[in-house]
Amino acid sequence: MSYLDNINSPEDIKKLNLNELETVADEIRAAILNRVSRIGGHLGSNLGAVELTLALHYVFDAPNDKIIFDVSHQSYAHKILTGRKNGFLEEENYQKITGFYNPSESPYDTFYLGHTSTSVSLAAGLAKARDLNKEMHNVIAVIGDGALSGGEAFEGLNFAASELKSNLIIVVNDNGMSIAENHGGLYQNLKLLRETNGTALNNFFKTLGFSYRYVSGGHDIKALIKAFNEVKNYPAPIVLHVRTQKGKGYRLAEENKEAWHKHLPFDLESGETIAADQRNYYNTITFDYLDKRIKQGDNVAVITAGMPHSFGFKPEMRQTWGNRYIDVGIAEEHAVSLASAMAKSGSRAVFCVGSTFIQRTYDQLLEDLALNKSPAVILVYGGGIADIDVTHSGIFDMAMMGNIPNLCYFSPAFYEEYTALLDWALSQNEQPVVIRVPKGEPLHYQGIYQLPKLGKSDIISKGFKVAIMTDGNSYRLGKNVCEELKSRGITPTHINAHYMSKVDESLLNTLAQTHELAVTIEDGVLDGGYGEKVAQFLGATEMKVMCFGADKVFTNRVPLELLKVRYSLTPEMIVQRVVQGLKNELGVALGA
Amino acid sequence: MSYLDNINSPEDIKKLNLNELETVADEIRAAILNRVSRIGGHLGSNLGAVELTLALHYVFDAPNDKIIFDVSHQSYAHKILTGRKNGFLEEENYQKITGFYNPSESPYDTFYLGHTSTSVSLAAGLAKARDLNKEMHNVIAVIGDGALSGGEAFEGLNFAASELKSNLIIVVNDNGMSIAENHGGLYQNLKLLRETNGTALNNFFKTLGFSYRYVSGGHDIKALIKAFNEVKNYPAPIVLHVRTQKGKGYRLAEENKEAWHKHLPFDLESGETIAADQRNYYNTITFDYLDKRIKQGDNVAVITAGMPHSFGFKPEMRQTWGNRYIDVGIAEEHAVSLASAMAKSGSRAVFCVGSTFIQRTYDQLLEDLALNKSPAVILVYGGGIADIDVTHSGIFDMAMMGNIPNLCYFSPAFYEEYTALLDWALSQNEQPVVIRVPKGEPLHYQGIYQLPKLGKSDIISKGFKVAIMTDGNSYRLGKNVCEELKSRGITPTHINAHYMSKVDESLLNTLAQTHELAVTIEDGVLDGGYGEKVAQFLGATEMKVMCFGADKVFTNRVPLELLKVRYSLTPEMIVQRVVQGLKNELGVALGA
Repeated sequence: MSYLDNINSPEDIKKLNLNELETVADEIRAAILNRVSRIGGHLGSNLGAVELTLALHYVFDAPNDKIIFDVSHQSYAHKILTGRKNGFLEEENYQKITGFYNPSESPYDTFYLGHTSTSVSLAAGLAKARDLNKEMHNVIAVIGDGALSGGEAFEGLNFAASELKSNLIIVVNDNGMSIAENHGGLYQNLKLLRETNGTALNNFFKTLGFSYRYVSGGHDIKALIKAFNEVKNYPAPIVLHVRTQKGKGYRLAEENKEAWHKHLPFDLESGETIAADQRNYYNTITFDYLDKRIKQGDNVAVITAGMPHSFGFKPEMRQTWGNRYIDVGIAEEHAVSLASAMAKSGSRAVFCVGSTFIQRTYDQLLEDLALNKSPAVILVYGGGIADIDVTHSGIFDMAMMGNIPNLCYFSPAFYEEYTALLDWALSQNEQPVVIRVPKGEPLHYQGIYQLPKLGKSDIISKGFKVAIMTDGNSYRLGKNVCEELKSRGITPTHINAHYMSKVDESLLNTLAQTHELAVTIEDGVLDGGYGEKVAQFLGATEMKVMCFGADKVFTNRVPLELLKVRYSLTPEMIVQRVVQGLKNELGVALGA
Repeated sequence: MSYLDNINSPEDIKKLNLNELETVADEIRAAILNRVSRIGGHLGSNLGAVELTLALHYVFDAPNDKIIFDVSHQSYAHKILTGRKNGFLEEENYQKITGFYNPSESPYDTFYLGHTSTSVSLAAGLAKARDLNKEMHNVIAVIGDGALSGGEAFEGLNFAASELKSNLIIVVNDNGMSIAENHGGLYQNLKLLRETNGTALNNFFKTLGFSYRYVSGGHDIKALIKAFNEVKNYPAPIVLHVRTQKGKGYRLAEENKEAWHKHLPFDLESGETIAADQRNYYNTITFDYLDKRIKQGDNVAVITAGMPHSFGFKPEMRQTWGNRYIDVGIAEEHAVSLASAMAKSGSRAVFCVGSTFIQRTYDQLLEDLALNKSPAVILVYGGGIADIDVTHSGIFDMAMMGNIPNLCYFSPAFYEEYTALLDWALSQNEQPVVIRVPKGEPLHYQGIYQLPKLGKSDIISKGFKVAIMTDGNSYRLGKNVCEELKSRGITPTHINAHYMSKVDESLLNTLAQTHELAVTIEDGVLDGGYGEKVAQFLGATEMKVMCFGADKVFTNRVPLELLKVRYSLTPEMIVQRVVQGLKNELGVALGA
């Protein structure tokens, strides 16, 4: 019998005494470790926020009081206390609970959240609406120190400090590091504040006008309850700076905070990863490539925005890059402008970034990078359809970036193509280059690979009637479609579209003369993507066009195989539509 | 004979003495007033930076030393000193010089610049590349106090303060206001620093780790030269906080800083605006609508991000809105998240923003707003093709926002349609709504306007063979095309596409049965836009599609009529292509 057995909502912890709450904290920690060791997830951030979350729910009255965890990658304790403990304790329920805030799971989750540095702005909006609605409740934003480097966090703090004259409690959960080590002048100030128990005169939060309190005991439930009680109903914005320890309570996570921030399934005793072969080939390929370029003395510099680990850049590896490696912290906008200026000055700047996070930089891409024709290189990781949290979808990058002038977006299919693109991108001075890092086991090009001229596609095999045009990640699917069509007596032309920013006009003009149907397949949202450009270009010709890709919808952890069926992204479904299309066109049955 | 006659590069001012420099400052001021009074432009920001710019060029050695003016809307003195004075003095040369940094005009302009808050990041990139290249020169960013509220400025400052160990001079040009009044806690700290002559212990810049100096005499050339000499070659990032006066030297601009930040042509004596009728009908319509809603006690709140004047929200008008008007300062990301949270809490939040500036918020639109289905309303002003500075183009908003799930983007053509959309958007709770504010003199709907069901287009007139589909701004052009076609014996169907986020599938299916050619016309970039969606949807049908819109290119102050010809956006050019298309299709001559 555990205490958690009887905890189904925050109400249930309000009757417990301190000893009992401490036992609950242990049980929550065990539940978090249970889930993450079995199915993976964020570990260090969640272990560090257990007592803080318990105390928050003990003192405040959610969901009437609104609590927003920035990013919400530290909201597991919150989920456990708000009716979702079974997602942590019972194997059959693991997949019913997502890894981030999710309003469809619980009214205690105020928003879908997954990108950093938004909590203060959102909380300010809740507070402002509360005031206009003449309601009374507390609004609490919990933001990690790492997220404070993101520009929107500053925008929110700057606004809240002066424009709100009512309750807004900003809990700065300071564990002394971001996902990787922190970067930025602000962190010296946080360190100073920690070292002086919050008494230093020079105080970042106070310069903005906030009331400020410091709590050294971020795992001391009694101290936290006292601190929260003191700021409850506080009639103005106030910062509560709480010192916590990332990974608290699991020795390995305490000792290697970066590696355990997020983790694959592991053995609780030994800490050894237990996982299906999740080898990320292109992480290794990319690291090796960049490492070689740097080590051989090329003027290459690699930039990341707080998440080097995602790309396999481990601390010991990136240290060897010295001043040619720059982590800017969580600050993607800055990263793009920085890279743009560096490349304009002769540095071969390479910004490595996840598909979902490049979304933060549309304006910088357009104005600072593309308009200025800076030859910086952006490597986009994780692009494409995936079984992933809805906040971290990789389906939008191609449509977002493919419609910006001057920006050259490539989606390579082959290993040889990828490295040839890197060679070229890092040798030219004319334009910004975006390369979508391929997924999965490397495909090798048959024969000697030669990079097409800029803007040209690559004809893999020549056929007739039907042209199958694929982006990098869709190459395998396209090949399967071709083979299936062949088995039905139609030998299609297969084209590696390669360059996704603009259609290869002369190729399409030729195809329009010689083929009846163009089929585009892309690993991203159809709307605004490559296929639509093909359809538009061929719109006034006799050639028909069918476009395959993801629907313009949000999906949350939907299994990949299910998504493929939903979007008709299987060889059978595509072939069926192609055959049907040809049948309609020719008025005769073909193959089927 | 004036001093300026002999100044063709910054070299020419280095030999002048203080008295002479002061005279040059007067001449620069007169040149700025000359140009702006004749053709309009940024006045207050430029008048405030005259001495500062003179002293910068006196002390530093541009273009070897790199000077970046944030936004560059205060770079007129810089332009005058770097070989472009004729653009300020001679009527025939006014149009040869643009209003912002422009590398194609001069090597002294380091980047195309026009959006705020990027200068520190760009300067940090120049400094970092300099260090990697083992070069030696100064890098100077000049950033106004107003631009400091933008998140990227903080990202840049935070990075520079701790990650750069070399020269980077950040001149904070503090005139005590943004375009409108400043909003944000930071500004209390700047005020404190001004009032204490920079000696206050609590210092925002010092909390980040910067070395810091204060210069009270921002129009005192001697003091400025002394200060710049002291920081020249300084081996670490340093902030030089300079107090200036916006509008300095032109009484009216000093007295009403907001109105004179940017101005239409005016009479120098009286200050009266001399301009062709530039009445902005939809500014008035929108203000009146919002004003009525607020005054009648609806739960409407209006949000702007530092530029209320652009929408005609004058200080005395917005004051009457009380706490239902929120200017967040230059902080668009925050504005979107704030609006999203407010709308989720029952406030009818309306964010008014320029097309070019909504670009800053792609990620917030997607994650905080659209994913959360927050019923906030965004009014996009200034969207579409225009004779405008390249950094402020309004052609991208539709392609950027039209491909985000859940986000409902409307481009109304008629006054009645616009207000009906506002009524509906502010009454529903299901989704975020973006409305592109129409341009020009209001068009009125013939008959009683009824808002189509969500996702449906509106058939204006029924015809045959050809369907002309237009967005709001293209309605007039579409109507002219229809009339021209009629005169050639083809009566087309005219459709007000209305909803730009998704095609009206049932309408298109009907058209595909009954028409031969769909023609889409949109006031924005073709790539990723509405026409491509139509082309994709109809790709596998017999119906042909021709799409008209802007090319995916950057254009800088190109006259509108020229752009229209370049993009085939004239009735004659469209009709010609339509007739040609039908001819090809039917194998017979039609009309022409």
